[in-house]
Amino acid sequence: MAGAPALADPDLLDRNDPDGEIRRRAEAYRNWGRWGSEDALGTLNFIDDGKRLQAASLVSEGLTISLSQPFDMNGPQKGWRRRTNPVHTMLDTGTDAERGTQGFPHGLGGADDVIAMPLQCSTQWDGLGHIFDHGMAWNGRRAGDVVTSDGDLVTGIEHAAASPVSRGVLLDLGRHLQPDTGELPDGYAITTADLESCAAAQGATSAVGRGDIVLVRTGQLARARRDGWGDYAGGAAPGLSLTTAGWLHRTEIAAIATDTWGFEVRPNEFDVPAFQPLHQVVIPNMGLTVGELWDLDALADACRTRGRYEFLLVAAPLPITGAVGSPINPVAIL
Amino acid sequence: MAGAPALADPDLLDRNDPDGEIRRRAEAYRNWGRWGSEDALGTLNFIDDGKRLQAASLVSEGLTISLSQPFDMNGPQKGWRRRTNPVHTMLDTGTDAERGTQGFPHGLGGADDVIAMPLQCSTQWDGLGHIFDHGMAWNGRRAGDVVTSDGDLVTGIEHAAASPVSRGVLLDLGRHLQPDTGELPDGYAITTADLESCAAAQGATSAVGRGDIVLVRTGQLARARRDGWGDYAGGAAPGLSLTTAGWLHRTEIAAIATDTWGFEVRPNEFDVPAFQPLHQVVIPNMGLTVGELWDLDALADACRTRGRYEFLLVAAPLPITGAVGSPINPVAIL
Amino acid sequence: MAGAPALADPDLLDRNDPDGEIRRRAEAYRNWGRWGSEDALGTLNFIDDGKRLQAASLVSEGLTISLSQPFDMNGPQKGWRRRTNPVHTMLDTGTDAERGTQGFPHGLGGADDVIAMPLQCSTQWDGLGHIFDHGMAWNGRRAGDVVTSDGDLVTGIEHAAASPVSRGVLLDLGRHLQPDTGELPDGYAITTADLESCAAAQGATSAVGRGDIVLVRTGQLARARRDGWGDYAGGAAPGLSLTTAGWLHRTEIAAIATDTWGFEVRPNEFDVPAFQPLHQVVIPNMGLTVGELWDLDALADACRTRGRYEFLLVAAPLPITGAVGSPINPVAIL
Amino acid sequence: MAGAPALADPDLLDRNDPDGEIRRRAEAYRNWGRWGSEDALGTLNFIDDGKRLQAASLVSEGLTISLSQPFDMNGPQKGWRRRTNPVHTMLDTGTDAERGTQGFPHGLGGADDVIAMPLQCSTQWDGLGHIFDHGMAWNGRRAGDVVTSDGDLVTGIEHAAASPVSRGVLLDLGRHLQPDTGELPDGYAITTADLESCAAAQGATSAVGRGDIVLVRTGQLARARRDGWGDYAGGAAPGLSLTTAGWLHRTEIAAIATDTWGFEVRPNEFDVPAFQPLHQVVIPNMGLTVGELWDLDALADACRTRGRYEFLLVAAPLPITGAVGSPINPVAIL
Repeated sequence: MAGAPALADPDLLDRNDPDGEIRRRAEAYRNWGRWGSEDALGTLNFIDDGKRLQAASLVSEGLTISLSQPFDMNGPQKGWRRRTNPVHTMLDTGTDAERGTQGFPHGLGGADDVIAMPLQCSTQWDGLGHIFDHGMAWNGRRAGDVVTSDGDLVTGIEHAAASPVSRGVLLDLGRHLQPDTGELPDGYAITTADLESCAAAQGATSAVGRGDIVLVRTGQLARARRDGWGDYAGGAAPGLSLTTAGWLHRTEIAAIATDTWGFEVRPNEFDVPAFQPLHQVVIPNMGLTVGELWDLDALADACRTRGRYEFLLVAAPLPITGAVGSPINPVAIL
Repeated sequence: MAGAPALADPDLLDRNDPDGEIRRRAEAYRNWGRWGSEDALGTLNFIDDGKRLQAASLVSEGLTISLSQPFDMNGPQKGWRRRTNPVHTMLDTGTDAERGTQGFPHGLGGADDVIAMPLQCSTQWDGLGHIFDHGMAWNGRRAGDVVTSDGDLVTGIEHAAASPVSRGVLLDLGRHLQPDTGELPDGYAITTADLESCAAAQGATSAVGRGDIVLVRTGQLARARRDGWGDYAGGAAPGLSLTTAGWLHRTEIAAIATDTWGFEVRPNEFDVPAFQPLHQVVIPNMGLTVGELWDLDALADACRTRGRYEFLLVAAPLPITGAVGSPINPVAIL
Repeated sequence: MAGAPALADPDLLDRNDPDGEIRRRAEAYRNWGRWGSEDALGTLNFIDDGKRLQAASLVSEGLTISLSQPFDMNGPQKGWRRRTNPVHTMLDTGTDAERGTQGFPHGLGGADDVIAMPLQCSTQWDGLGHIFDHGMAWNGRRAGDVVTSDGDLVTGIEHAAASPVSRGVLLDLGRHLQPDTGELPDGYAITTADLESCAAAQGATSAVGRGDIVLVRTGQLARARRDGWGDYAGGAAPGLSLTTAGWLHRTEIAAIATDTWGFEVRPNEFDVPAFQPLHQVVIPNMGLTVGELWDLDALADACRTRGRYEFLLVAAPLPITGAVGSPINPVAIL
Repeated sequence: MAGAPALADPDLLDRNDPDGEIRRRAEAYRNWGRWGSEDALGTLNFIDDGKRLQAASLVSEGLTISLSQPFDMNGPQKGWRRRTNPVHTMLDTGTDAERGTQGFPHGLGGADDVIAMPLQCSTQWDGLGHIFDHGMAWNGRRAGDVVTSDGDLVTGIEHAAASPVSRGVLLDLGRHLQPDTGELPDGYAITTADLESCAAAQGATSAVGRGDIVLVRTGQLARARRDGWGDYAGGAAPGLSLTTAGWLHRTEIAAIATDTWGFEVRPNEFDVPAFQPLHQVVIPNMGLTVGELWDLDALADACRTRGRYEFLLVAAPLPITGAVGSPINPVAIL
């Protein structure tokens, strides 16, 4: 944002001062008011019709790849913060229909079903009401004026129903930094230099700019699929360093998503208690929409094969009124 | 399908013989085996990469329109067949965050949420396991071999995760047949002639063919929005006549969706007890994916303004393992 | 409570001053501190072992009567404040077992099920954290220190797991005041004089005193069963007048329950906007546990037949950690 | 049951023939028709008013002890067969009330909540529709005629709403067989001789007979509480041997409950694949109501202190229409 104060050295962190490191970045990269006082979209505003038109023009094959993990009881959740895996149950079944217990005429039978799930249990967008900074929500509102027990009254995910459709860019950090395995180790903090060298190495189709939705593959999901979930949901993970906040701001991307549960590196980069400082900077202050638990492995294979890392990305949330997040099935169209 | 027996007169119905009328159409338009014995997609197979490439080329403005109704307690459901509206509750709130009850360090606060909902409660796809014909499911399998209490073990909606991306065509029957109001009356049975005259009247961009996803606007949702839900979910409605089964088969469309709860006309076109006979023909026999409760009003306005009724449609279901349907947020990209 | 200020005339109400009428009663009948600063039971403390021993001695026949309404989708809820009826779904069925799809050895089959429901949807106890008075909860705590998104951290219903076992007394106001129909009209405000004359008319077994659980039958449920739910859950109803607060306090009863959704009369007794003023007095201030949606009809028949209105009542809540209420199946043992 | 064929030696098992061992006991102890063809209660029929009158007379102190585990996310479930722990969420909170976001008049505030849980997730009764034997349910009905996706249409737990109130007898097998620790090891199969010697050792108040509800404490819950849940829900456990089926039948008890997840010993007593054979004998054939996951530790302490093992037990299920089980809060009244 024009005029935002520069940090002395945005790539350095005082590992004993999370409060200060967060505050300085929050102030430097704060977008409050940038899109008016009524805004409910944040950086998704960077996507305009022209951007989407450009994105659609990237489709050259008609190939679609789903970037969603399965939604079922075999997911990674273990109950932390009441986050369970989706519970899917049937209201009617084919077994009943076949046996003739349903009471419909002329041989009709039916099956219906129900789901109960935390909105953040699997592949999802974090909405702008998901994180607060010192009691403040996106655009400078008080958290209690935004998200009550009735949900997000101001920035609910329904406002973004038609927004997250743009040019997607995959940055395969796992492959770039660990060519052998394609997997970053847990606790690895991806830096701005890493992001930039990855984009450079992948070539021109990886250039990142205004309105893009950036997908960062760490390879952790591939590891979890092979070795078992372990603490995949809530535990240690590779992810973005707090120091990338400036890059996230400067590039004017619309959204970012990773194949990890929390998008930023865990444990966080402090020697004192800290928890998700990059969330605290980018969601309530910058207004950045963040995706987590995406499955980027098939897409990464397709991109590498083609030497092409850009595509049309459609990742529309379910417009659940007042939700602070949404399960999604993002689709890359190459 | 080549070799399918022709009905003597597919546009006529014996209003006292639902069994016979259903059986004749089931046999005439059955696609079992057409895509192999293992198939889980049915007519979605008509969408191939070439089709999607063509669909992407239709994007000329970059305008996106969500075709989803809101997911919340103000929806149309009244509990029929245990179909409730979505119940969205918070696990953490901004009120708590602002008050400082959450126990996070450095001023971090968070909000999380949960949803419980029938998968058919609002804008949705019916999967291939949703309806059975005399105990048989899509592709000639026994219903009890396909959908048990564990869900759809064979044709679950997850198989279609990357499929419903194609050329969308809006047929605004409400506007075509009722230019003044734009709304068909409840109980109006849309015929093949209606569909064809609408397509002709709307012009060349409304031609329907292989792999298209056809959206039929009846105007009933506009009426319900104005007058109150009443029996919008489960009651009388305009919709497709059973006699359109041949057109649905002949055109080789990939999927169809309407702005009503049940896609076909209600009450059904018989003088004896009958229930959703067109479902019984097209889902288990033809393998057609059916969308219901879509909001086509904004799209209809946009299409009419432009005199252009085709667009890129992305309507990827949540890949809920074993689901016989999925809530969706379909996005039209013009 | 000793020393509580007496109201000038507790039987009168200024119908334009709900604030004042509530405040005066809240102050007069406040029990904060009466059972120590750590208390989580309120008036349930009036039940001691001696009381329960006396209650058990009332059993003279061994007859049990359930006072619970059915828990199912046919209940009275219509979605007001996201209160749905219970949604009960199956995880496994007999149909599957019979067909042999479950994979168990030696002919074993099983059925399991799941429920999702508001804790206040049917026969229930309101816990002490259910209602607040000007931001204050039972025993003088700040509401936000007691009930957050994590539930009731202080007075959760689990604390009462073994408490509500006592002498029950049925006051059949419906029969007493309307001998012909047994049903009070909606909007009828039951006064202290009504309660006392009913107890007197029913005879010695209806004397109300310390530690009793009083069941007030209005007859509204019988009417709803006959005529349909209508607005039974959330609408107009007979019930206790705000002016009975003194009687509820003076008698030192442990709990009270009715066959209506809200225990007090609706509409409330004011000419200006008001909502559940008696709740506001008795739950956070008096610490009274309140039961709603009980089915007292079979019990009333049994009591009238015997001319005996006292019994052992066992109404233990499910110990749901942090709940502000609990579904219950109260059992009267005569 | 009069005329039931005796097993040659009911205390012996052929560890390679689960089918035969189950079949012989199913035939020997089958109670089908004993209480008429319409019966929905099974052995709960052994409780009559006289039995309950006797049970009430056992109350000598007025002491109540809840036998329920807490219902919350910290429970033992891990998702096996979609059994999660209870998910309790708030619809309204004290934080909101205190902040004034709720919109009620005159300072009223409220909190409401919701629960989603499997009915077998914590302290519960298994209903008669919970288990089938070769596709047959209790009283000789076909399983698919009893339990469909609509629930248990015949023997739903609601039929037992007023039944499980009787004399309770605690048999503290853990303490009897392992006086030092009070805990039986996982895999220990409790025999008829064990049950009888425990009853004898505990003294006259432990005599077991018609209509009693027998509570068998193994001590496994105490171990899980100390050492962590591990596989407490679904894993190895001490429990009743299949060979106790005759004792369960002969004593004519009304119900039995344990402090383990599955009441019978796990692993089961066979060298070939087997799963819950005692369930298969006693639920669909004998009509026995079975309780699991009860907390018997505080009760055991109280009984041992008093040298008295009988009490009034009230364990009424929630009358969830069509449920094959119910969460309960059983209360022992001494």
